[in-house]
Amino acid sequence: MSAPKLDFWFEFASTYSYPAAMRIAASAKAAGVDVRWRPFLLGPIFKDQGWTTSPFNLYPAKGRYMWRDLERICGALALPFAQPALFPQNSVLAARVALVGLAQEWGEEFCRAVYRAEFGTGRNIGEAALIADILNALRQDASAVLEQAQSDAIKAQLRTRTDEAVKLGIFGAPSFVTSDGELFWGNDRLEAALAWIKR
Amino acid sequence: MSAPKLDFWFEFASTYSYPAAMRIAASAKAAGVDVRWRPFLLGPIFKDQGWTTSPFNLYPAKGRYMWRDLERICGALALPFAQPALFPQNSVLAARVALVGLAQEWGEEFCRAVYRAEFGTGRNIGEAALIADILNALRQDASAVLEQAQSDAIKAQLRTRTDEAVKLGIFGAPSFVTSDGELFWGNDRLEAALAWIKR
Repeated sequence: MSAPKLDFWFEFASTYSYPAAMRIAASAKAAGVDVRWRPFLLGPIFKDQGWTTSPFNLYPAKGRYMWRDLERICGALALPFAQPALFPQNSVLAARVALVGLAQEWGEEFCRAVYRAEFGTGRNIGEAALIADILNALRQDASAVLEQAQSDAIKAQLRTRTDEAVKLGIFGAPSFVTSDGELFWGNDRLEAALAWIKR
Repeated sequence: MSAPKLDFWFEFASTYSYPAAMRIAASAKAAGVDVRWRPFLLGPIFKDQGWTTSPFNLYPAKGRYMWRDLERICGALALPFAQPALFPQNSVLAARVALVGLAQEWGEEFCRAVYRAEFGTGRNIGEAALIADILNALRQDASAVLEQAQSDAIKAQLRTRTDEAVKLGIFGAPSFVTSDGELFWGNDRLEAALAWIKR
C-alpha cells in the first residue's frame, strides 16, 4: 500500500510558508505521509480580493505582529531569521524554477534554499542572479534551467496551479490539502493536517 | 511568589475565541499561570481598518474555511458546534455584562455560557432575553445585572478596554498578552503564550 499523500501549497513571497517549508519533510516522514510540493502565486488571488499588496502591509498592526511572531517561530525551530527590506517580493521566477526542479530531483532543496535566502538572510529572491546562485550551489546548469523556467509550458503550468488553488478554496499560504479534500491553512495547521490523514 | 499572569483578550462575536474561552482555564492551570479575562470590542478596530463587517464575511473563501476549521477544532475538543444563522453578532451587551461578572465571581462561567449559546447551539447573543436566561441559570438577579451593565461606568470601562487593546497592538481575537508585553494572536497560539511565560 502506498503512503497517504498531503499537498503542500506554498508561495515564495509568503512569510509563514518559510517555517512550513523547512519542517514539512521531517514532520511528514515521521507521520508516514508523502508530500507533494505545490508552488502557486497569491498575487492574482489577493488582487481578486481587491488587495494590491500583502495584507501584512495593508494592516500595519497585523504586519508588526506577524514579523514578531515569525521571529519567535524561527527561534523555536532554530531557523535563521532576517526581515527582508523588501516585502512582499516578486516570487514569479522562483516559482517557475521550482516547477522545473520539482519535476526533477532537486526541487525541494531549491525551495528550502530560496526561503532561507529570503527570510533567513533577508535577500531579494526577485533577482535572477540570486536564483542563479542557488541553482549553481545545487550543481544545476543555471542558464539552462532559467531558460526552461521562462518557457511557455512552465508559465502555463504555474497559471494552472494557481487556478487549481482557487478551486480548492485556497486563499492564503501555506495551505495543506489532503487527498479527501480537507483544507488546512497556516504553518500552525501542519500537525492538524497530518493528524487528519492518520485519523 | 504569586503565579505568572496571562491576559486573555476576547470578543464575544469572535469565532475562534470560543474554543479559547472553553479551554484556557484548564491549560493555564496546568501551566501554573493565572488568567485575567479581558473582554473588548473588535468592531471599532475593524472599522478603523475600513471593514464594515467581519473579514470572514468580506472574504468568502476565508469565511468558508473558518467555519469548517472551527467545526474540526470543536470536534477535536469535544465541544458542541452549531454555525449561527447570524454572524457576526452584536456582542456589546454580553461584553458589558461580562465586565460586571468578572468583577464578581461568576464572570468566567458567564463568558463560557455565552460562547456555548452562540457557537455551541447557534443562538443570538445580541438578544437581551438570552443574556437574562444565562444570568438566571447562574443564579444572578438578571434585571439588576443588566441595569448595572448599561451604566455609564461599565460602558466607559468597555471603551477603555478596547482602547487599551489597540495600544497593546491587538488587531484580532482571541489574543494573549504576557506581563512582559508579548502578544500572541489566535486560539492556536495559547500554548505558545504559556510556553513563553514558562521559558
